[in-house]
Amino acid sequence: MLPLQLQSESHVPLYVQLRDQLRSLVHSGELRPGDRIPASRELATQLGVHRTTVANAYAELESEGLIQGHVGRGTYIRAGSESLKFTAPPPPAPANGGSVRWESLFAEDRSEDGLHRLAQPAPKDSISFVLARPDARLFPMQELRASLDAVMRREGPSIFQLGSTDGYPGLRHELLEFLRGEGLAAQEENLLITNGCQQSLDLMAKAFLRPGDAVVLENPAYPGAITICAGARTRCLGVAVRTEWEAPGAEGIDVGALEATLAANRVKLMIVTPDFHNPTGTTLPLESRRKLLELASRYQVPIVEDHIYARLHLRGEQMPSLKQLDRSNVVVQIDSFSKFAFPGLRVGWIVAPANVIERLRWIKQATDLHTGQLAQAALAEFTRRGLLLKHLTRMRRIYLSRLEALEDALERHMPDETRWTRPRGGMCVWLELPAGFDASEMLIHARERGVSFAPGRYFYSQAHRPNTLRLGFTGVDERDIVRGVTALGEVLRVEMRKRRGGARRVETSRVALV
Amino acid sequence: MLPLQLQSESHVPLYVQLRDQLRSLVHSGELRPGDRIPASRELATQLGVHRTTVANAYAELESEGLIQGHVGRGTYIRAGSESLKFTAPPPPAPANGGSVRWESLFAEDRSEDGLHRLAQPAPKDSISFVLARPDARLFPMQELRASLDAVMRREGPSIFQLGSTDGYPGLRHELLEFLRGEGLAAQEENLLITNGCQQSLDLMAKAFLRPGDAVVLENPAYPGAITICAGARTRCLGVAVRTEWEAPGAEGIDVGALEATLAANRVKLMIVTPDFHNPTGTTLPLESRRKLLELASRYQVPIVEDHIYARLHLRGEQMPSLKQLDRSNVVVQIDSFSKFAFPGLRVGWIVAPANVIERLRWIKQATDLHTGQLAQAALAEFTRRGLLLKHLTRMRRIYLSRLEALEDALERHMPDETRWTRPRGGMCVWLELPAGFDASEMLIHARERGVSFAPGRYFYSQAHRPNTLRLGFTGVDERDIVRGVTALGEVLRVEMRKRRGGARRVETSRVALV
Repeated sequence: MLPLQLQSESHVPLYVQLRDQLRSLVHSGELRPGDRIPASRELATQLGVHRTTVANAYAELESEGLIQGHVGRGTYIRAGSESLKFTAPPPPAPANGGSVRWESLFAEDRSEDGLHRLAQPAPKDSISFVLARPDARLFPMQELRASLDAVMRREGPSIFQLGSTDGYPGLRHELLEFLRGEGLAAQEENLLITNGCQQSLDLMAKAFLRPGDAVVLENPAYPGAITICAGARTRCLGVAVRTEWEAPGAEGIDVGALEATLAANRVKLMIVTPDFHNPTGTTLPLESRRKLLELASRYQVPIVEDHIYARLHLRGEQMPSLKQLDRSNVVVQIDSFSKFAFPGLRVGWIVAPANVIERLRWIKQATDLHTGQLAQAALAEFTRRGLLLKHLTRMRRIYLSRLEALEDALERHMPDETRWTRPRGGMCVWLELPAGFDASEMLIHARERGVSFAPGRYFYSQAHRPNTLRLGFTGVDERDIVRGVTALGEVLRVEMRKRRGGARRVETSRVALV
Repeated sequence: MLPLQLQSESHVPLYVQLRDQLRSLVHSGELRPGDRIPASRELATQLGVHRTTVANAYAELESEGLIQGHVGRGTYIRAGSESLKFTAPPPPAPANGGSVRWESLFAEDRSEDGLHRLAQPAPKDSISFVLARPDARLFPMQELRASLDAVMRREGPSIFQLGSTDGYPGLRHELLEFLRGEGLAAQEENLLITNGCQQSLDLMAKAFLRPGDAVVLENPAYPGAITICAGARTRCLGVAVRTEWEAPGAEGIDVGALEATLAANRVKLMIVTPDFHNPTGTTLPLESRRKLLELASRYQVPIVEDHIYARLHLRGEQMPSLKQLDRSNVVVQIDSFSKFAFPGLRVGWIVAPANVIERLRWIKQATDLHTGQLAQAALAEFTRRGLLLKHLTRMRRIYLSRLEALEDALERHMPDETRWTRPRGGMCVWLELPAGFDASEMLIHARERGVSFAPGRYFYSQAHRPNTLRLGFTGVDERDIVRGVTALGEVLRVEMRKRRGGARRVETSRVALV
């Protein structure tokens, strides 16, 4: 039996007490890699708490990489988890007195974001809705190979030589053409090639943010944006993104709340995703886009428009981007090949006013000199041959089928009290479970059934709603979508039946999580 | 005639007054893109100052990108130079009142580093010793193509899919083998793949540095390291790197001065290049390496060992790296394919204690998710086939010939008062001109002869010595090395003859530059 003691009268939530005590047991060596820990139900009985409490503690420890669940075999202390000891206080000076105490030297005392652990390879045959990423099985390998062949025959050694921070000229040329074809008349001086949107956010943070600055983020938001703002030691001001049932006809970031935030704070930057927002899938209506631009202009706050999903327009009316509507030069648009083409190549770009690009180029050079040229040259050739547009068109068709299959399966298998967004494009559907449910706990049960998703907790910078989750649908084929949603529906119904008797205890736990 | 007025009694150096007045004329529109400005000799006569004063002002304006010289045609205001106006005070709010005043929003008010402008493509037939980079004409294109073919046939779509922040497994495997073959027994948990040493420095800065922290750099140093420390708003403490004539048998970073610096400051990190230091080419003796490690251990200051040139060992005894000598786990070694193989691919790595790698991996993920996988897979295959070692061996042989040709030419053509380092490897030779000479001015004359190099000014964070310069020899073949050095020798002799009469005025100018 584990030496655990929870104090129900403490102001520290029970699941936090449990989490911290378990972590200490690992750090002290009482629990060692490979040790099995009790099932959540078993430990809950033993401690006299609700299973949700244990499940929440386990979910956090799993996201830290300290424990790992195996379907049908139980939960274990992870091998290598001792390397995570930097979350603990620095160890005493070593006996030899010489070794550097690295943990005491880190600039930040922050623990790891859990999303990439959540995204670790699932067991075979399991169905993962965790990530918003393309389906690699659909990548046109023959055509990519032909493009690379052509590059290697034609380009000569310059692609392997130190290149320009601006980006590979061939790709810049193709990209400007491609953007013009979409209705964005960017010039050479408005374009910078980057390693993708995560780097673009990093460059923007370096260019504009100082510690203590206020940044407006969507809430919920792309976790990478939250990480960037936290890393720059800024104040993240989350403005609610509303679903169609919360604000019919006015979904997406709440421009009224945004205005109040801008009026009350000296905001330095806002980061928004008007098209097929990650994680909610919402599309910002035209009127809200105009209002957003007007606010940016009035309060002199630049907008970073995350345009990464916009090209995956699947149905309904297509909106002009903020950049296309921008008459006041307030928008920096970040974009990438990663969602509509090939994320493994790590190539994206920024479209911005010339003086902003000039500054970002300088920062990009100081960050990693330039983006890899082989990947850029391959994408340039792929685009030049018309294959990029062809691939995009095919992806749109397939992803629409998957979205429709998902919606159909949700209609059939989800309890009435469940709601979900109806995105016009992108890669994710946002689900709201009945009040009182915790998606992190449900994930534990779902995994036992071989299905996984991303609980809402990873996307909130504040006002976390535990009963939300994201389903990334583009990486799962229709058969698995139906199988996965069927299993999710069953898990949810089972839990609902169990809850009917224990609503009060569930309520307590939910409050503790807020 | 330009409206310029220099005040000789001012405490502001004349060349700074001239530089700033010329810059103002551009910003105010009195000088416009395409306008020709007087030759330095002509303007010097007109203003009654020494030509060096004008040359220094022009050199700075050129490095800012404001003016550009054309061989045989004179010097002109650059097109696009108005986009550099962020070095000037923010312009008044625009008439429409809506456009964001981007310049007023940048986090830093710093102007651009000039090295990349210096590195811009030189006119055809000119000989450039500017950069420390490999010779692309020697890249084994057939073998690279075969490696890529094999990758595309064998690997499947996973290289184009979102990958692991750790790096592509195939490359990690090959690299650990490769390092073991060199005598470094790193394990999986000690390795992180990055986009090269510039990114590795950026990640280290994010992991360890807070504004105001003190960082020890070599002086002179790799400019990218200076930029990283400045960008992190740290205090750069430059410790002198000494040449063999300054400290026979004890060249490289001055460990005595280092000890004094560590004793007097709470230093957070030191960045050193023990092997074939950029820019001086010096090798740190074994005894100094041991002392450095002892100091790091005693003062608990981690060492970042820049190992990027070490594999280009051309002659003489090979030293064990700091990482190999490190018994106290104080060294983070940054390394890259960029110098001994192919910089355009942007792939490097870090070898460090497991808890440091764990932290850096987290930061790498927040910075750009992961390094591009196509480049990694190509390098893995190239290495697996034994081609990397073969290429390295060939490069060593060729670069040694070039180094010997350079030394031979310097012996023949340089005046007696000139000194230069005798590196055992790497890519650069460091030259000291006779006292009173300014390498930036000499560059202007050298360019007229179609030869260029990197003046020492770009490498100093403090105590700048104007009479130093760096010759990167690996990108120039032997015939051009002889031609280039012959021209440099002639330029220098001409200038020396002119100086014999005007030593006093030169002296004044030299003091103003310190």
